Amino acid sequence: MKTSENRLVERITVSLEPPPRTNLRVAIGDDAALFAPRKGHQSILTCDWFLEGTHFLRKVHPANSVGWKSLARALSDIAAMGGRPKCFLLSLAIPENLITSWLTQFLSGLRCAAARYQCPLAGGDTTRRTEILVSITVVGEIRSGTAILRSGARPGDLIYVSGRLGEAEFGWNLLRKGRTKAAREELAKTGKIHGPLRKHLFPEPRLSLGQWLAAQKLATSMMDLSDGLSTDLPRLCAASRVGAFINSTHVPLSPLKREGKLRSNSTAGRRRALQLALDGGDDYELLFTADPRRACRIPSSFRGLPLTRIGEITRDRRLILKSESGNVALQSRGWDPFRK
Amino acid sequence: MKTSENRLVERITVSLEPPPRTNLRVAIGDDAALFAPRKGHQSILTCDWFLEGTHFLRKVHPANSVGWKSLARALSDIAAMGGRPKCFLLSLAIPENLITSWLTQFLSGLRCAAARYQCPLAGGDTTRRTEILVSITVVGEIRSGTAILRSGARPGDLIYVSGRLGEAEFGWNLLRKGRTKAAREELAKTGKIHGPLRKHLFPEPRLSLGQWLAAQKLATSMMDLSDGLSTDLPRLCAASRVGAFINSTHVPLSPLKREGKLRSNSTAGRRRALQLALDGGDDYELLFTADPRRACRIPSSFRGLPLTRIGEITRDRRLILKSESGNVALQSRGWDPFRK
Repeated sequence: MKTSENRLVERITVSLEPPPRTNLRVAIGDDAALFAPRKGHQSILTCDWFLEGTHFLRKVHPANSVGWKSLARALSDIAAMGGRPKCFLLSLAIPENLITSWLTQFLSGLRCAAARYQCPLAGGDTTRRTEILVSITVVGEIRSGTAILRSGARPGDLIYVSGRLGEAEFGWNLLRKGRTKAAREELAKTGKIHGPLRKHLFPEPRLSLGQWLAAQKLATSMMDLSDGLSTDLPRLCAASRVGAFINSTHVPLSPLKREGKLRSNSTAGRRRALQLALDGGDDYELLFTADPRRACRIPSSFRGLPLTRIGEITRDRRLILKSESGNVALQSRGWDPFRK
Repeated sequence: MKTSENRLVERITVSLEPPPRTNLRVAIGDDAALFAPRKGHQSILTCDWFLEGTHFLRKVHPANSVGWKSLARALSDIAAMGGRPKCFLLSLAIPENLITSWLTQFLSGLRCAAARYQCPLAGGDTTRRTEILVSITVVGEIRSGTAILRSGARPGDLIYVSGRLGEAEFGWNLLRKGRTKAAREELAKTGKIHGPLRKHLFPEPRLSLGQWLAAQKLATSMMDLSDGLSTDLPRLCAASRVGAFINSTHVPLSPLKREGKLRSNSTAGRRRALQLALDGGDDYELLFTADPRRACRIPSSFRGLPLTRIGEITRDRRLILKSESGNVALQSRGWDPFRK
């Protein structure tokens, strides 16, 4: 009596079955999920594509990374509002011959992220397809009136980023060029993976930082860096109807330890690291602004994560980068699926 | 400064910009949407694929039908719980050369469905792809404790369906075989389309019926018929841990007016119509059960939509069809993307 689709849904359900939670009333197995929002809170809704060939390569990216990252990317949007994730929906299209070990590994990565960030599966949709397609919707929650929007930046506000920028893109370059022998050996030996490759394969949405900034009312605007600073900062500025001045020497760079002959301390190395930091995608760090009168309350690091002031919001709506060769217009060269 | 992705998001936003609504706080243009659920209500969450090659064909299905149906399918899941839609998220992957008239028509169909069912766009994600991929998430709402689940059917409950079954599949057969000249002429002449083709291209989620059944507490269980009665009824029965007895002569059939030489009143015509009604997908009618003591309150039609009693829930967990040749086991032959 059971159809193959029913069996696939069962496998997903068994792998990801959520712990009983008081606010997730009906999870998988009905037409839709029922979720009871808490009084005085708003729901946060976001969805994200994660598509084979566009966002990952089947032969290059481990299936557990695909599972982890598909959820982590969407969770990063919840972090960017200062919210807490509550549950997610999984839309999965998959070739039939992958409903074996690939699916097991994919669900394992997804389960790890769901457990780590306390965001259980609530439902979804499955179908067959020659390529792997993933679309994730996350529902989060935040106390009404405390969400940090992109539109709140004011002239004079200071601009901050978390972590180091360009590290995920650097990791992707290593992976693409097959220069990941050391990392793979480390993974095989210790079961763990570190550095740029980890940042590319298993990014960590900055949920705690976002929630802290929202609770303390320290950020006037915020977004996550998914497409690169040079593409995302203009979006925040457009939403706030302001400009920005970025000091390139303040941008926290990724150390280029393993990229051929380039060294972070050489001029060419610094240039390459800056380019990665401005244009590299997939960092999932937070970009936020703060009123200068409250900026003294922003620490230089939050639970081990560096927070760095990189510039200032301006009334003039241009985006200016102070570089070695003087002030130049910041060019959007980050990730854009429609760029030719 | 604007990236092509930003421009696409702008086009979608302008086409679908929602009317100001008190419970949709931040719509498009931020990392995520904020939605304020009403007190005493639960949120309903559902997502649905609508993929080129799997669910529609670019050369066969008009773009406005693709837009309408992608939302209507997901709304049908909200109807199946008895809920009211509140907003939706659109994940769209599209080839660059279609960001012209195809996209305009797609958004036009989507806008019609969004306006008709009062379900504004709240956000989404876009990317480039050689094939058109759509994933829609709908957030609905229902008074806490009144959602109608699949799991509530009890032995002795009567089984009902809305509308006529198999009509959408019949429309698809006409379209596939190119037998839609009359319908296309009618469309060109009157701007309207009727009958099986309309049912296939522009299905109507049964939201009012679902809400009425929930408010009146008349249905013990409910789901929508998306994959065909023979595939969906077993799902309802499995969730309720019951079986069912269906009388084939009571199943409301679609009249086969235009399928070659078959006529509804011939034996072969009736057989073909029954097969479509049992196994045809995409009807988006409601399947529900009712306690026999309250069944007198279920009318024979609801706002012009027929409601038909087709059988009874049994304690014995088998699914039996009473047919011309006696009682037989109901075989699941509906839509299953993983069936070989």
